[in-house]
Amino acid sequence: MIQTTVFQLDEYGPWTVTPSPRAEMDLQVLQSRLYADIAAFVGEREGYAFYTRGDNIIGITNGLDSADHERLQASLRNRYPVSVSVGIGSGETPRTAVAAASAELRTAGSAQDETRTDVCRGDTLDKTGTVHVGHFDIESATERFTDRLGAFETYTAIHRWYGTLARHLYQEYDALSFFVGGDNVVAICPDLDEQAYRDVITHVTEIDGIPFRVGVGTGRTAHKAGMAAKHALERGRERNRSVVMTEPTQTANL
Amino acid sequence: MIQTTVFQLDEYGPWTVTPSPRAEMDLQVLQSRLYADIAAFVGEREGYAFYTRGDNIIGITNGLDSADHERLQASLRNRYPVSVSVGIGSGETPRTAVAAASAELRTAGSAQDETRTDVCRGDTLDKTGTVHVGHFDIESATERFTDRLGAFETYTAIHRWYGTLARHLYQEYDALSFFVGGDNVVAICPDLDEQAYRDVITHVTEIDGIPFRVGVGTGRTAHKAGMAAKHALERGRERNRSVVMTEPTQTANL
Amino acid sequence: MIQTTVFQLDEYGPWTVTPSPRAEMDLQVLQSRLYADIAAFVGEREGYAFYTRGDNIIGITNGLDSADHERLQASLRNRYPVSVSVGIGSGETPRTAVAAASAELRTAGSAQDETRTDVCRGDTLDKTGTVHVGHFDIESATERFTDRLGAFETYTAIHRWYGTLARHLYQEYDALSFFVGGDNVVAICPDLDEQAYRDVITHVTEIDGIPFRVGVGTGRTAHKAGMAAKHALERGRERNRSVVMTEPTQTANL
Amino acid sequence: MIQTTVFQLDEYGPWTVTPSPRAEMDLQVLQSRLYADIAAFVGEREGYAFYTRGDNIIGITNGLDSADHERLQASLRNRYPVSVSVGIGSGETPRTAVAAASAELRTAGSAQDETRTDVCRGDTLDKTGTVHVGHFDIESATERFTDRLGAFETYTAIHRWYGTLARHLYQEYDALSFFVGGDNVVAICPDLDEQAYRDVITHVTEIDGIPFRVGVGTGRTAHKAGMAAKHALERGRERNRSVVMTEPTQTANL
Repeated sequence: MIQTTVFQLDEYGPWTVTPSPRAEMDLQVLQSRLYADIAAFVGEREGYAFYTRGDNIIGITNGLDSADHERLQASLRNRYPVSVSVGIGSGETPRTAVAAASAELRTAGSAQDETRTDVCRGDTLDKTGTVHVGHFDIESATERFTDRLGAFETYTAIHRWYGTLARHLYQEYDALSFFVGGDNVVAICPDLDEQAYRDVITHVTEIDGIPFRVGVGTGRTAHKAGMAAKHALERGRERNRSVVMTEPTQTANL
Repeated sequence: MIQTTVFQLDEYGPWTVTPSPRAEMDLQVLQSRLYADIAAFVGEREGYAFYTRGDNIIGITNGLDSADHERLQASLRNRYPVSVSVGIGSGETPRTAVAAASAELRTAGSAQDETRTDVCRGDTLDKTGTVHVGHFDIESATERFTDRLGAFETYTAIHRWYGTLARHLYQEYDALSFFVGGDNVVAICPDLDEQAYRDVITHVTEIDGIPFRVGVGTGRTAHKAGMAAKHALERGRERNRSVVMTEPTQTANL
Repeated sequence: MIQTTVFQLDEYGPWTVTPSPRAEMDLQVLQSRLYADIAAFVGEREGYAFYTRGDNIIGITNGLDSADHERLQASLRNRYPVSVSVGIGSGETPRTAVAAASAELRTAGSAQDETRTDVCRGDTLDKTGTVHVGHFDIESATERFTDRLGAFETYTAIHRWYGTLARHLYQEYDALSFFVGGDNVVAICPDLDEQAYRDVITHVTEIDGIPFRVGVGTGRTAHKAGMAAKHALERGRERNRSVVMTEPTQTANL
Repeated sequence: MIQTTVFQLDEYGPWTVTPSPRAEMDLQVLQSRLYADIAAFVGEREGYAFYTRGDNIIGITNGLDSADHERLQASLRNRYPVSVSVGIGSGETPRTAVAAASAELRTAGSAQDETRTDVCRGDTLDKTGTVHVGHFDIESATERFTDRLGAFETYTAIHRWYGTLARHLYQEYDALSFFVGGDNVVAICPDLDEQAYRDVITHVTEIDGIPFRVGVGTGRTAHKAGMAAKHALERGRERNRSVVMTEPTQTANL
């Protein structure tokens, strides 16, 4: 079972243009810092949080209970000009979990409903779940892109590759993939075997023509699974292998 | 003429895994805050900066001279565990400008070259240039997506729409488009007329089926052009028009 | 029993002038943000942290174990150009606790010892302790100072009052007092009765001539005790009483 | 002539207890970050800003005009739950300048006046002024205090020394002194000669018994004067001299 959280800024769209449009860089600074605070809080509890749309942030929150979420919410309310509503949901797959979390928020009201502020809804897992992380990156991305193409072309090429990868993983495997900077994608996955990851790489490479690798890790929290995945990816780079799975025994006492 | 800057973290990829992989949320917090500092600095001087890949940040920097860039660089070096190299480039279109900025960095060395740190290369514009901004957003995005679909599906749908829009604007018009959160895209454009924007909307809507609007503004800096574009977009929402151009006279004394 | 932590930047003095003196505002921004990160981390776990000298930060850390401290340390190391050593110490009084925490650091080496970096020493409390907080503020400070004197004179007057109060509470009662902005002082105290607080106010008012109040709270953590103290102080303002103690029963289920 | 700015949070005291007292660490994080943003903004324009009371921040702002102040104000309003009023004042001495800045704020209304928000009052200097900075630190502070006494005793000893030094410099020389962390004090001074600094050291050492040094610098901005002072202090450490003045010619082309 995986637990996810959707952090949704309350009435944020209207706020950005009231009484008149606010400076774009002020909004970018606000969004980045608010995200950083959520990422730090969730990260310290071994969860993950991803920026996605900035006004909707998706967290993998196994290990965080409702009191943790409410503490974060109260702290943000004390330090920002906007408030944040929280929907928590769990499921057998990352896809069903985030759907449940999203449904909690929708049940509470519209994202632009003036009366829906600072909501915290949904149940957290009683037991420890299990998180599977696939950490993907592009082979020789610096030589292939950064040192060869312009900064914008590199960005759009990697962005396109990420989009193809994310949609495929979501539609075929119920996984949630997030671009985390550079040429790195972190996917929160169900329990997939090595062949599934090989199939993903084959399928996506056929579409975009970009060779890439994945390291896979498993753990009781996103952090533990993610660290195992990073180590696996390092081994893949060293040994020139496109898929490296962490052995369950290696993660047992993480 | 438009002036752009590429901010590139030096040897960042290797740093993230030395001596062993660093916690993902620490990296996300670091990247978000470093971006926020660049966005604040550039924004206070009426420029724009966009996160893109996090380790490569693209700025629209009309009005910032080399001393400004070096001051920012020195300040980041004093406050972060990583350093930033800077390439500045100008051009007739946003596309050629960012290509020139990228070329300055490449000439200085690879992004993973140990001896290339803290470089600041490229010439700034002597004269004030002109910036054109198209601010796009989706019609009724909250009702259409946020309040109806799950948070991840909304994200990927908007992400896909942004990708289509960005590639089309780049390939056909030499424009640089950036997702700025929610359902908003800011495009730095050449001087395009209303029909061009109509064509863009028609073309992209045919592909992705998502109706959207644009407000267009012009100014001596990204901030001035962007604020005019935001006001134009507001008028488009009120009057239900898909393209609103700001009259040049309206921006004259901004 | 109270648990305290001293966070000490490693070799910070030499770093600020190597290879040549760094810009003062860069240092101030660095110190403020690093402190804010420590305060947020400790605060989310119901502890308190106080800026004091900026390169030495004192925490009241009942409820935080060694793993928490090490997680914070690792996170700071990943995001700042400086590292932080940690000494943890407990005692019957705040004074003896911070002395023990400081001794742990000194045993590990000098603050400017090149080989002493990232140390984490000292034992955390097995059991929940009890924290007593006295929250002091000046009667009618805005009318008396802010709206009457210049900003610097107000600052030095309040600073002097704080110094007198802090030294008296430390020497006579083993309490640790910290200025927390405006005209507010938070003191971490042993278990003192109402008469002791009355004596403190009488003594300090005789020296500096500034009338002030205190609200006193008790709890298992600094946060719980501090919130009770704040509520008590509010009651003191409403009822014009200079000392308000929270009844133990009122804090029982905080 | 020196130009100073008082940044005063509007109605901050009442806000911190409305509707009920807010968590102390949330307030500390808010205050530290807001200060850091002001320090970064002012610092990038070669000014200085000092935390002092947190809700009242004093800046040395030679080189910043009204538009700069208003830009900072607007940016803070977009990113924080509190707003900031600004008083700007100039004078022949730092003391008269900050008195003038404070008077501008008081004329606009009380710090707790509900109708006084986001004020920006006062005139900026037309011409470049001259700033004199004395950078003080304690001889062998690490050996004398940090490595010998506990963290709290060290803090209060240095705090007391700073208080004595600041009051003496203010009363006798119209200088504004600020504790900037560690054992460092930055004083914004009139044009004093070497003998005056020697007298200050003699006087304060007699009271507190702590030996200390000063480096003095002059420049058109606080940053330029402060950097010259830091370099002078370094020379004083190397040559074991208690007062080192930077020769005017040395700062001419800074």
